[in-house]
Amino acid sequence: MRGSGKISKAVIKRLPRYRRYLDDLMKRGVDRISSNELSNLIGYTASQIRQDLNNFGGFGQQGYGYNVKALHTEISRILGLDRDYKMIIVGCGNLGQALANYTHYYKAGFIVCGMFDINPRLVGLKINDIEVMDYSALDDYLEKTPIDIGIICTNKGSAQEVAEKLVAGKVKGIWNFATVDLTVSDEVALENVHLSDSLQSLAYYISHRDE
Amino acid sequence: MRGSGKISKAVIKRLPRYRRYLDDLMKRGVDRISSNELSNLIGYTASQIRQDLNNFGGFGQQGYGYNVKALHTEISRILGLDRDYKMIIVGCGNLGQALANYTHYYKAGFIVCGMFDINPRLVGLKINDIEVMDYSALDDYLEKTPIDIGIICTNKGSAQEVAEKLVAGKVKGIWNFATVDLTVSDEVALENVHLSDSLQSLAYYISHRDE
Repeated sequence: MRGSGKISKAVIKRLPRYRRYLDDLMKRGVDRISSNELSNLIGYTASQIRQDLNNFGGFGQQGYGYNVKALHTEISRILGLDRDYKMIIVGCGNLGQALANYTHYYKAGFIVCGMFDINPRLVGLKINDIEVMDYSALDDYLEKTPIDIGIICTNKGSAQEVAEKLVAGKVKGIWNFATVDLTVSDEVALENVHLSDSLQSLAYYISHRDE
Repeated sequence: MRGSGKISKAVIKRLPRYRRYLDDLMKRGVDRISSNELSNLIGYTASQIRQDLNNFGGFGQQGYGYNVKALHTEISRILGLDRDYKMIIVGCGNLGQALANYTHYYKAGFIVCGMFDINPRLVGLKINDIEVMDYSALDDYLEKTPIDIGIICTNKGSAQEVAEKLVAGKVKGIWNFATVDLTVSDEVALENVHLSDSLQSLAYYISHRDE
């Protein structure tokens, strides 16, 4: 990585958002953009933007601004999007199936290689050409197949056990959709998407909007 | 609301998490818990927990701790979970269908009343007894039916237009799954679930784990 040392979690959280806006700019044929223009688009302050992007070794040039394509390429590289990720999904109910079908991710290099469920009615089902395997085959599968990301879409009661199997099977990251906070080794990256937490925040704002 | 005035966004973001742990404690038959014990469970510091919960008017008693059930009830009430929310889903592809089927939300009082799509192959489809309507019927529907939450599961190109129709149709909150930042009036609550941003953060941590 170019630039200096450790990048804060807050900056990393903002990178996909920068990338999204740069992507739109490229599609609109914009070659370069100042931090002020970027600020108007994204809603972060121009100084925040300059500070964020300085982490990666100053793409901006005084009086010129940022080269949109170069910045997009560099942020993609920093995010690790210049390579593919092999994924498996454990728990193939509605959400697991939706994620499997979410072709958007395939395009971006996130490839579902295997799907697992405990429910005999789901085992054998083909989703996007991937056959759902029995959960009991997970350990063996992971022993033979190097997997980058394990996606957990089980109920919350099973999620910790699944996470432990994934860690034992040497996945590098876990994308957790079960409504529970998992305990995993520090060496494994963990991202939680707690849909019901998000919906409850929305309920809060709705029920307090007239205050 | 009991307690004093305005609660910060950060606290509100933590409330569903408190509620989740309190829910587990209730199921395990735990009646009361100290802020230190709660801290060990949730991972926030005890002083953070006391500070957060003081926002709602001091449920804890020195030397006794928190009454688990009372705290759960109060947090539920503050979150607005003591009432029902009527929801519609716009965009009934994989993710929209998965959210419709996510019965978890029904239990918690989030009720899908209508579904809309522009795709003739989806219009007429029944998902959980709700028939997918044509998108062109959305304005009329909203004029006749008071809806609390509009869920956007369209592609990013259509999301802003859908959001504007929802706002014009007087929804109180928008739960946005399209990979785009929406502009809506301040009076409408907005929660984004940017799945691809989350996946990209995971990619970052995986590709930098050996640094």
